[in-house]
Amino acid sequence: MNVFTVEPANQQRVVDLIVRATDEFVSKAPGFISSTLHRSFDGTKVAMYAQWESAEHYEAMGRDPGPLPLFGEVLTLAKFEPGMYEIVRTFPPATE
Amino acid sequence: MNVFTVEPANQQRVVDLIVRATDEFVSKAPGFISSTLHRSFDGTKVAMYAQWESAEHYEAMGRDPGPLPLFGEVLTLAKFEPGMYEIVRTFPPATE
Repeated sequence: MNVFTVEPANQQRVVDLIVRATDEFVSKAPGFISSTLHRSFDGTKVAMYAQWESAEHYEAMGRDPGPLPLFGEVLTLAKFEPGMYEIVRTFPPATE
Repeated sequence: MNVFTVEPANQQRVVDLIVRATDEFVSKAPGFISSTLHRSFDGTKVAMYAQWESAEHYEAMGRDPGPLPLFGEVLTLAKFEPGMYEIVRTFPPATE
C-alpha cells in the first residue's frame, strides 16, 4: 500500500504515470496478484493498493529498471510513503 | 483507507481494537461493502482498507456513537491518517 501526496494540480499526472508503469511493467511481474489505484476526493493524494504473492516478489519487481523513468517522474511530483503489510483479516458485511 | 502509526509494542492492541470495532459496529453499518485489515512487517503501522457504497454511508457510520470507546482507545495509541478515495482503476495480472 503506497500513498503519494501531491499538489492537486499534479494529481492527474501522477495517476497517469502510475497507470502506465502498472500496465507496462508491474502487472506483468511474477507474483503480482492485483492492484487498485485510487485518487483522494480532496486532490492531495494518490494511493495504490496492491497484492503480491510474497514480499520477495514485490522486491524483485523493484529491481526491474524498466519502470524507473516513470517512477522517477512520480517522485519529482509526489512525496512517497511506502508501506509493506500482511493481511490480518478480511471482513465481509455482517449478516444478522 | 486509514493508516495508523504505532509503537511496535502497541501494534497488536490496535489490531485487536479495530477488529472489535469492525465486528461489532462497522461491518453492520448500511453501505459497508468489505474491509481488509493489515499490519506492517516493521511493526509501526496498521492499515484498514475498506470499501463503502458511498462517502455518505461512511460518514453516517462515523456518527454512530457505538464504536467511539474503541476508536478513542486507538487514538491514545496511534497517530491516525485518514484518507477517502475513489477508485481510478483495478489492474488484474497481465496476460500475454
